[in-house]
Amino acid sequence: MLIDRRSLLTTMLAAGAAVGANQALDAAPCTSGRIRRIATEEGFAIPELIEAVSRYMRAHGDQEPGLPELRNGFPPLERFPWGPPLIDFERRIADMDRDGIDHAVLLVMSPGIQIFEPAEGLELARLVNDRAAEVARRYPGRFTPLAALAPQAPEAAAQELERAVRSLGMKGGIINSHTKGEYLDDRRFWPIFAAAQALEVPIYLHPREPSPRMLAPYLDFGLSGAMWGYAAETGLHALRLILAGVFDEFPRLRLVLGHLGEGIPYYLDRIDNRYRAQPRLVPTSSQLQRLPSEYFREHFWITSSGANWAPAVRFCQQVLGVDRVLFAVDYPFEDQPATVAQAMAIPMPATEQESFFHGNAERVFGIAPVTRTRLAGPAPPRPGSPRRGATAA
Amino acid sequence: MLIDRRSLLTTMLAAGAAVGANQALDAAPCTSGRIRRIATEEGFAIPELIEAVSRYMRAHGDQEPGLPELRNGFPPLERFPWGPPLIDFERRIADMDRDGIDHAVLLVMSPGIQIFEPAEGLELARLVNDRAAEVARRYPGRFTPLAALAPQAPEAAAQELERAVRSLGMKGGIINSHTKGEYLDDRRFWPIFAAAQALEVPIYLHPREPSPRMLAPYLDFGLSGAMWGYAAETGLHALRLILAGVFDEFPRLRLVLGHLGEGIPYYLDRIDNRYRAQPRLVPTSSQLQRLPSEYFREHFWITSSGANWAPAVRFCQQVLGVDRVLFAVDYPFEDQPATVAQAMAIPMPATEQESFFHGNAERVFGIAPVTRTRLAGPAPPRPGSPRRGATAA
Repeated sequence: MLIDRRSLLTTMLAAGAAVGANQALDAAPCTSGRIRRIATEEGFAIPELIEAVSRYMRAHGDQEPGLPELRNGFPPLERFPWGPPLIDFERRIADMDRDGIDHAVLLVMSPGIQIFEPAEGLELARLVNDRAAEVARRYPGRFTPLAALAPQAPEAAAQELERAVRSLGMKGGIINSHTKGEYLDDRRFWPIFAAAQALEVPIYLHPREPSPRMLAPYLDFGLSGAMWGYAAETGLHALRLILAGVFDEFPRLRLVLGHLGEGIPYYLDRIDNRYRAQPRLVPTSSQLQRLPSEYFREHFWITSSGANWAPAVRFCQQVLGVDRVLFAVDYPFEDQPATVAQAMAIPMPATEQESFFHGNAERVFGIAPVTRTRLAGPAPPRPGSPRRGATAA
Repeated sequence: MLIDRRSLLTTMLAAGAAVGANQALDAAPCTSGRIRRIATEEGFAIPELIEAVSRYMRAHGDQEPGLPELRNGFPPLERFPWGPPLIDFERRIADMDRDGIDHAVLLVMSPGIQIFEPAEGLELARLVNDRAAEVARRYPGRFTPLAALAPQAPEAAAQELERAVRSLGMKGGIINSHTKGEYLDDRRFWPIFAAAQALEVPIYLHPREPSPRMLAPYLDFGLSGAMWGYAAETGLHALRLILAGVFDEFPRLRLVLGHLGEGIPYYLDRIDNRYRAQPRLVPTSSQLQRLPSEYFREHFWITSSGANWAPAVRFCQQVLGVDRVLFAVDYPFEDQPATVAQAMAIPMPATEQESFFHGNAERVFGIAPVTRTRLAGPAPPRPGSPRRGATAA
């Protein structure tokens, strides 16, 4: 009796048994190509932005205390290992082809354009967006850039989001957490949310280092960066949005968080529990229509950028639903081949793998689906290859 | 053919199938009594401490900006719902008997004695510890108090820990995170760790609100408390200890964290990954002998205080090991009957349930084991009883 190999693998995966079996499934001859992989939080920059950040930091670095390593500006690209892959799209395409990434959602690198004065910020946003749209046109079907926004001028940022969506075909906006220490729960920023809701595009709330009024204890031991401070900053920011009533005001607004939701899914039950227990400490609680977790489950999608750890990804799929968790790498800051291998090794039934690696991204970012036959290409990297060192270079 | 009911249940549980089946197991006639339950993070106070906090806050409240609700001192006990159960041990025993809690590890309530000037802090520490030891003697086999410590006088705190362990029979110390904005990675506090290691007792690093230099953005929406700020503060504190090299200096030091590890287990893989990737941002990294996760896995135990959510508890058992996760309630701040019901409903094989509810606590806190036959008593609460409102009263 012949055994249907695909059924067997699906059963093994459903039992949570087979780390590594995904690779076999991926290479199974019964499919005409491998699974599509869309990476949904991939950093980029343009040379003019890197130069502008350097210029600003040298002149006004004291106003951005979270970036002490940039006080003299970025080092020259040849001494900044993430610099070349951030700006070189030929190289990025080659890396994507090598690593089996079919499509990338592009986000302007943190802190993006949020450190500048409003007029310069808006000008840079337009330049970054025009350039990103040009890149997307140059490589058809490979990139979905999100619109860089300068919230320091909220009405202009809303207009730039509209221009980027309507004229440049963009599918969402990106904001790198705080802007000069201010959070988006302040109503003066809400025109941006109004525009996103009206345009039916998501806002990706991406991390940066903790805001100045919470920064000091994170400055030691490198804790202000991606190791810890990014999630502390962005998780707090997202909760502030929920508790300020943003989603009662904008009932169709969608947000995306990276890094498996910046810690919020882990504490979803505790947040509700303590929210209910302490009404006297939460002045706005009587105005909110629902529990914090209900807003999170309805309005947020999360990506696995920098966090493709099997138990944590599976936990998020379990508590939020498989349609809420999207694959991401965080190129060039993460080692892309190792990340793809780590993600492919997450034990996951085949249908959930389809959602994780591309289906959810297609829905959230409006990316056109493709058939498997169009995905002929290099094999995915082998699982278990050791994680490499400090740079993606 | 007779079916062995216990085997059937164990199999169901191993398959992660049966939420609620634990209750059936718990009541199974093949055991001579129900499972022992030790709750490991249970708050208490003494009237003199509450009065001293009120007096201090009215005089120097500006020095403790994280406690705006106490600027005029505690309200009278009759208007402070957690007050009576914090100080009334008759009532606590009655609640424990009602809810099926056999034994409680007692921790002085946050912010404990850490707000006072050193001399007053030390005096209050001695008073609290003498009183707690007296309570433990009055109810044999029911309480394991931890020694309240005043880190603002580190050498005296180390001596008080030694006195509490040697003379009062205590099994560990408790520190409510920051002390006047300072963290225990500062070497001036290390005599406390030296004493804990020499005495072979753990230090429970319990939360309080974020330290003054990170507090401001948490003050809105009640975020500085248990809903979010407690974990932000205490998770950061624990990581600072790891990255400062505390565990290279004290290789047998043991720490306990509540609330499922204050967020750290969720990001264990990411912390290592970013630690490895950013050596230039981590000046001490070259001095550390191991990866951050290795210190966490070896030196930390976590409890489920306020976080008995099945997916999160199971996640922690999966990634840390079942011998690292201890049951806790957080009485009187949590609704104890609902918490016991929630914890009992976590799908868990019988052997893991024994570790979670009492075995790990017996090992970590040196609590004498008891046989099941000594645990005759009231039935546990029914699962699924709705979580009650704001108070444990």
